[in-house]
Amino acid sequence: MNDMSSGVNPTELLCTSVAGCKRHLANASAQVRAAVVAELASLLRRDQAAILSANALDLEAAAQSGLSASLTDRLMLNPARLQAMAADLERVAQLEDPIGLELERRALGPGMMLSRRRVPIGTLGVIYEARPNVTTDIAALAIKSGNALVLRGGRETAHSNRALLACVHAALDSQGLPTTLVQALPAEQRSEVGELLAQDRHIDLLIPRGGQALQDYCREHARMAVVYGGIGICHLYWAPSADLNRALPVVVNAKVQRPSVCNALDTLLIHADAAEKVLPALVAEMIPLGVRFVADERALPLLAEQFAAQVRAAEAGDFDREWLSLVLGLKVVDSLDQAIEHIALHSTDHSDGILTEDAEEAARFLNEVDSAAVYWNASTRFTDGSAFGLGAEVAVSTQRLHARGPMALEALTTYKWVVEGNYSVRKG
Amino acid sequence: MNDMSSGVNPTELLCTSVAGCKRHLANASAQVRAAVVAELASLLRRDQAAILSANALDLEAAAQSGLSASLTDRLMLNPARLQAMAADLERVAQLEDPIGLELERRALGPGMMLSRRRVPIGTLGVIYEARPNVTTDIAALAIKSGNALVLRGGRETAHSNRALLACVHAALDSQGLPTTLVQALPAEQRSEVGELLAQDRHIDLLIPRGGQALQDYCREHARMAVVYGGIGICHLYWAPSADLNRALPVVVNAKVQRPSVCNALDTLLIHADAAEKVLPALVAEMIPLGVRFVADERALPLLAEQFAAQVRAAEAGDFDREWLSLVLGLKVVDSLDQAIEHIALHSTDHSDGILTEDAEEAARFLNEVDSAAVYWNASTRFTDGSAFGLGAEVAVSTQRLHARGPMALEALTTYKWVVEGNYSVRKG
Repeated sequence: MNDMSSGVNPTELLCTSVAGCKRHLANASAQVRAAVVAELASLLRRDQAAILSANALDLEAAAQSGLSASLTDRLMLNPARLQAMAADLERVAQLEDPIGLELERRALGPGMMLSRRRVPIGTLGVIYEARPNVTTDIAALAIKSGNALVLRGGRETAHSNRALLACVHAALDSQGLPTTLVQALPAEQRSEVGELLAQDRHIDLLIPRGGQALQDYCREHARMAVVYGGIGICHLYWAPSADLNRALPVVVNAKVQRPSVCNALDTLLIHADAAEKVLPALVAEMIPLGVRFVADERALPLLAEQFAAQVRAAEAGDFDREWLSLVLGLKVVDSLDQAIEHIALHSTDHSDGILTEDAEEAARFLNEVDSAAVYWNASTRFTDGSAFGLGAEVAVSTQRLHARGPMALEALTTYKWVVEGNYSVRKG
Repeated sequence: MNDMSSGVNPTELLCTSVAGCKRHLANASAQVRAAVVAELASLLRRDQAAILSANALDLEAAAQSGLSASLTDRLMLNPARLQAMAADLERVAQLEDPIGLELERRALGPGMMLSRRRVPIGTLGVIYEARPNVTTDIAALAIKSGNALVLRGGRETAHSNRALLACVHAALDSQGLPTTLVQALPAEQRSEVGELLAQDRHIDLLIPRGGQALQDYCREHARMAVVYGGIGICHLYWAPSADLNRALPVVVNAKVQRPSVCNALDTLLIHADAAEKVLPALVAEMIPLGVRFVADERALPLLAEQFAAQVRAAEAGDFDREWLSLVLGLKVVDSLDQAIEHIALHSTDHSDGILTEDAEEAARFLNEVDSAAVYWNASTRFTDGSAFGLGAEVAVSTQRLHARGPMALEALTTYKWVVEGNYSVRKG
């Protein structure tokens, strides 16, 4: 907090102004909310030149500051990317409206009905990094679900975000809604994040889309509800009965298809009865794809001689790392119980699976492994909003309250109880 | 945290041991969990003498320390209260099992099914004060919903809680479950609460059942998800069309039936067109019931002369107080909008209602007032688990995530995604 001023810092003022008009959006009709999102898509196409000019300033600054090629690629916009962003928004506009649905209705007594009705959460806070598409994605999801929004993007994309926010404001205005409903904090100082985390009176839900350091900072300082997620130490357990020829492509897909994302595979646990046959075949198949291996003391002897260059011994902490790259941990276990135990100790509760022909064993794994998504004979890569058919994705939650796994529009809603009486009074 | 020791304090050790065996309960069958709760009810009846002896020690200490009569009454047990506690537990044992239910199921692709399945949250932490019945109530609800539990009761009921926890342990043991699943922190020092709030690795959900000071402390220090609740500044808005003879008993019920609870009425907002006729009648009816009034500058002149002894002028902050006693705030407004605006500023989002014959006006109120429970022509006193037909109550949530209003067994669960594939891989 800013102790120098009268006690109200600019972050608090901004959050107050956003939360202060949230009812305008919560009470807007489904048609109006969808129209704002559709208009935002049109504006991305119409204002392409202005957005790309702003993005060029960010790219220039990135070059000057020596930002890495991969981060620079993340913040770069071009006509194709803008078209894709607009197409995503058009899909969001057309999703089923999540607000107002009656979840249950029953009589409470004579002349008295109780119902439960879906409503927006209120005001969301989202902290994110160098992806400008998040600005419009999250704004569209918030607006579609009736939630006001405070954004805190990365400094690297400040110009792009400003241009995109102007489109959001124009889209709100086109439907007669106050532009105050979606606002961005400046991304100049780290202190703004700390100030944001203190706004529990105005921010109902905080979504920190970033790495471990940001999430730890939120655990320490956030006073409001936070959805943690997006960090996946993911496992597959290869049981003795798994079909070698069919299971191998699953491991390859889980590790290789997009290694930089949170649902990519980090550790393969393999039953001792299968290890000798499977591991050399698996490693031989994956090395040409660029994969390197970190093997525990029982897997290593099966591989060390033949694949000395690509396999190293696991060190302390290796099974607690999210690799986010073409590295795969290998560990031999003696039983399903050992596999479940390892996962309980090392998983981030994101996505974990079993490869087996034994339905009973699969059932035990699916029951007892306590992750947001559990898999039987399938790649962990399916854990996301689009693969699960949710039409959108706000985040992948690895915490247990309110929403687990891929969060879509419905996860941005809550409910209220509605009692319609007949001048009813409580007796007992 | 205890910086003096090796870094692991007794609170952390206890939480680690509880969380470390949570799978035993999560994986127990519905029959076993229900049997534990039923056995607990039997033990309360069987061990009545031991429990009452322990309670006598707490009552003795209360007398010595000069605890107030109302707090002493809250901690007092007797045979009738123990019978009632046991009967409550028997009802919990018979509630529908909340775990394992399939919430949805659909094909994700060829040979691939996605489902969502209800599971326990994991490990709960509950902080509560001088009501020993909470010990067995919460233990029963946690066990029935498959959750491990760390309790932190009040110092005033330490002996009673120890005797009741012994029954919980015996009940767990009777079904072959580890007694470690439910444990209590000592209630000696405030520092234990701070240590508990740091156990985000072991406690998945914290429920602080206490006043504003405890909840503020949790907002500041808790690293895990917290359900805030149980504080209700509740409103009724009396619209011009409300039927005087039928609406008056609703106001009386909401204020008088049990004034010390969170769903009792705190402020009556009344439309200017009705105030002159209604307020004197209302006050005249409620004074014999012991009610005193705090009136805003427009209500006061209608009452001051006739009821000088029972009506005083409202002071700053009076409309932001939860009275928990036979005091009622009175305020005159000019419109539905003014009433909604006052509620938005002063309500704790617990329970707020409208008294009106006008269905359109009621619909606007029910939509736009953003509280956990909203009422049309009914007393706010209905907001609780038993009145809503939920069969149990853990807390009344006034926060927006996961659960709002009365929380019952279902609010102690979350879900997992289950994918059953056919060695399925992700293409795009």
